[in-house]
Amino acid sequence: MAQKPGIPKGTRDFSPKEVAQRNYIMNIIKEEFETFGFQPIETPSFENSSTLMGKYGEEGDRLIFKILNSGDYLKKVDPTLLENKDSKKVTSAISEKALRYDLTVPFARYVVQHQNDLVFPFKRYQMQPVWRADRPQKGRYREFRQCDADVVGSTSLWQEVEFVQLYDAVFTKLRLEGTTIKLNNRKILSGIAEVIDAQDKLIDFTVALDKLDKIGQEGVVKEMLSKGISEEAIQKVTPLFSFEGSNIEKLDKLQAMLENSEEGLNGVKELRFVIENIEKLGLDSAKLDIDVTLARGLNYYTGAIYEVSAPDTVKIGSIGGGGRYDDLTGIFGLKGISGIGISFGLDRIYLVLEELGLFDEVILPKPTVTFINFGEAEAAYCMKAIKELRKAGIKSELFPDSAKMKKQMNYANKREIPFVVLVGEKEMENNSFSLKNMKDGTQKECSLEELLDIVK
Amino acid sequence: MAQKPGIPKGTRDFSPKEVAQRNYIMNIIKEEFETFGFQPIETPSFENSSTLMGKYGEEGDRLIFKILNSGDYLKKVDPTLLENKDSKKVTSAISEKALRYDLTVPFARYVVQHQNDLVFPFKRYQMQPVWRADRPQKGRYREFRQCDADVVGSTSLWQEVEFVQLYDAVFTKLRLEGTTIKLNNRKILSGIAEVIDAQDKLIDFTVALDKLDKIGQEGVVKEMLSKGISEEAIQKVTPLFSFEGSNIEKLDKLQAMLENSEEGLNGVKELRFVIENIEKLGLDSAKLDIDVTLARGLNYYTGAIYEVSAPDTVKIGSIGGGGRYDDLTGIFGLKGISGIGISFGLDRIYLVLEELGLFDEVILPKPTVTFINFGEAEAAYCMKAIKELRKAGIKSELFPDSAKMKKQMNYANKREIPFVVLVGEKEMENNSFSLKNMKDGTQKECSLEELLDIVK
Repeated sequence: MAQKPGIPKGTRDFSPKEVAQRNYIMNIIKEEFETFGFQPIETPSFENSSTLMGKYGEEGDRLIFKILNSGDYLKKVDPTLLENKDSKKVTSAISEKALRYDLTVPFARYVVQHQNDLVFPFKRYQMQPVWRADRPQKGRYREFRQCDADVVGSTSLWQEVEFVQLYDAVFTKLRLEGTTIKLNNRKILSGIAEVIDAQDKLIDFTVALDKLDKIGQEGVVKEMLSKGISEEAIQKVTPLFSFEGSNIEKLDKLQAMLENSEEGLNGVKELRFVIENIEKLGLDSAKLDIDVTLARGLNYYTGAIYEVSAPDTVKIGSIGGGGRYDDLTGIFGLKGISGIGISFGLDRIYLVLEELGLFDEVILPKPTVTFINFGEAEAAYCMKAIKELRKAGIKSELFPDSAKMKKQMNYANKREIPFVVLVGEKEMENNSFSLKNMKDGTQKECSLEELLDIVK
Repeated sequence: MAQKPGIPKGTRDFSPKEVAQRNYIMNIIKEEFETFGFQPIETPSFENSSTLMGKYGEEGDRLIFKILNSGDYLKKVDPTLLENKDSKKVTSAISEKALRYDLTVPFARYVVQHQNDLVFPFKRYQMQPVWRADRPQKGRYREFRQCDADVVGSTSLWQEVEFVQLYDAVFTKLRLEGTTIKLNNRKILSGIAEVIDAQDKLIDFTVALDKLDKIGQEGVVKEMLSKGISEEAIQKVTPLFSFEGSNIEKLDKLQAMLENSEEGLNGVKELRFVIENIEKLGLDSAKLDIDVTLARGLNYYTGAIYEVSAPDTVKIGSIGGGGRYDDLTGIFGLKGISGIGISFGLDRIYLVLEELGLFDEVILPKPTVTFINFGEAEAAYCMKAIKELRKAGIKSELFPDSAKMKKQMNYANKREIPFVVLVGEKEMENNSFSLKNMKDGTQKECSLEELLDIVK
């Protein structure tokens, strides 16, 4: 019985047009990565489970796709585990590989494994799919592509400046005006926690503060109090309730507010370096904005934290993010190597460009010329010409069947082929070709040389 | 405790150089695919298991990587199955997705699912990884990349001519001289089976015949007899034991030998069409060779069968293959659509080019210019220049840390960066840059404009 074809939820087929549009974005990202001095690596789609598990928190572990061992995988499993239907423990017994969940952990593994072959600072980029068993929704898929650039082996703040420029360069080339690069620093967050004397309530604090636009100061204070943050603590951070003005003004407010926190002041200093240098260098299309509510994977980052949002008119989550992590490779045994990196979310950038109509320029990979097939002798004559066209780099093809003229022209029309060539007895006698311009409908008999010149 | 980093067997990390070399091959294949009128599609890495299972035979089913269901996947499984440790039945209960095993079955699924959006004949190419739980060995990996071009919706023999040309075009562009495109036709194999009156022994027959070079006619006959093929039958196919000469001579021998098999003669006619037209059109680097022992997935192909072997000096399996399948989409409910396609084995082509030293021309994606970092003021000065260089498309970078000069020069040396820029107080005063050519060691003070001109 025939199966009704379908694909797993959260995954997608890409049509020729979509592939071309995705490649358009990826090529620009790739070009800028290389212009900024990054080199590509690739890692396997699946890793040993031990490499991935425990690196993304409990939630992450749940969302990692596990691959079943091959062969008679149940043979050696403890029968009690099976009897108890203990899915978690059975998983470790029947699965030892898992699909990549992001590109950062495999990169850390790569650096440690190949450390003797690398020149540090090592600047790599990687553009590969990742998989997460997440609940699919707009802009969130179970298979999606990350485009990451990271540097390991340097603590330089210049690198933090570079990544702001890199975001700006890519979005400028994509003609995506009006993105906002939000910037924060983990040390500032730690400083705030020190000031409010509530290290454990930092997430509650930033989550509440992030709602300022929606629920106002009163609402935010109410939420903070309900989370057990004291009135006294809230008092100390009142500057954050009117956290407006230029980035420099924001920095000054933070500096005053965090005057008693050494770590907080360090964070302000780092952030100031980036802000001031970006002001000197200028940005072409993006806006840089300090956002102290930005926390992203708090336990992971140790310095700069980035997040990019699309222009205000497009309602979608972040289209990029990243930050510094001081000891990423430590989990694989290489201590004291600082890393910093950013990621572009290809699939969301795609949705943004589509919504804003920014794909006009993408050229679809379709033939420039289709030769109509009038029969064996004519086709053989055409094939010789096609060989020459292809050698000249012109995308061209013979309609494979000598079907009715109408059918063949329909094909060319539907595919929006720019030129059609017709060869009958007359043309074969004249050693010529009748070239039809499908846009203006004009037709002309010409030699192979003329044909090459026109369609080029 | 730190984990010792490693990757699953049969998978690979790719270094920047390897990525560049693989992209070099893939870009040439892609370019030729498009020049021949094919358009790209992409399908998800995993499919519903029902889409893949049963399509590749029992052996194939075993080699498909299955993905474990998420969550408490054991909850609903029949306890008896678990108790009996029936791995096969439990698999269907705990896994509903599987990694792509090839690109052909997902393509068939794609065509059926999107049939109303496609213009037929539909010519697509697809270059994506596939996964097989095979025993790894030289040139055989558990994750590898296929590059496929297929046409559905046409039975034209011109398409079979096209694919020979396409193979030739790609290998010519790769400067890989001396490949052999082996060609057979399923109908000729059926004709042989008719002649020897042993449809069920066809595989035994071709396997034995394939050993002619190694074990001689006597050995082959002995093996055929041992497989139950009669002496009388073997008598009828003696022309195959001296199957030499030109392709046309081979066709004539086959025609005589298969004179009583209608299907066999049809196969000869089809093959003759391809051979004769390729002789007229010519090949640039490949050799076309009729090989009646070529069977490849016999139950799958219905017409032309292709296989490409590397130049004789390189010992490796086939580097490409394909053929016609008359009813591929039938399994998904769309009957009577003929397809034909070929595949390039990227990973093996890579090994061949490497062995023959054909990667010389590949340009590594590394910076053209590294700016040495002498401190904050100098770096800020350099960053302005770097921004201009990047806008001009020149790959350039600042060494992120103001480390010792020697360390920075070592970095540039090891990475074989062509140019290094040094900026100290003098250059900042003169509004200039000291540009060092790392190849010849010369150094020169110049303006930004001159710098741009030289490194371009």
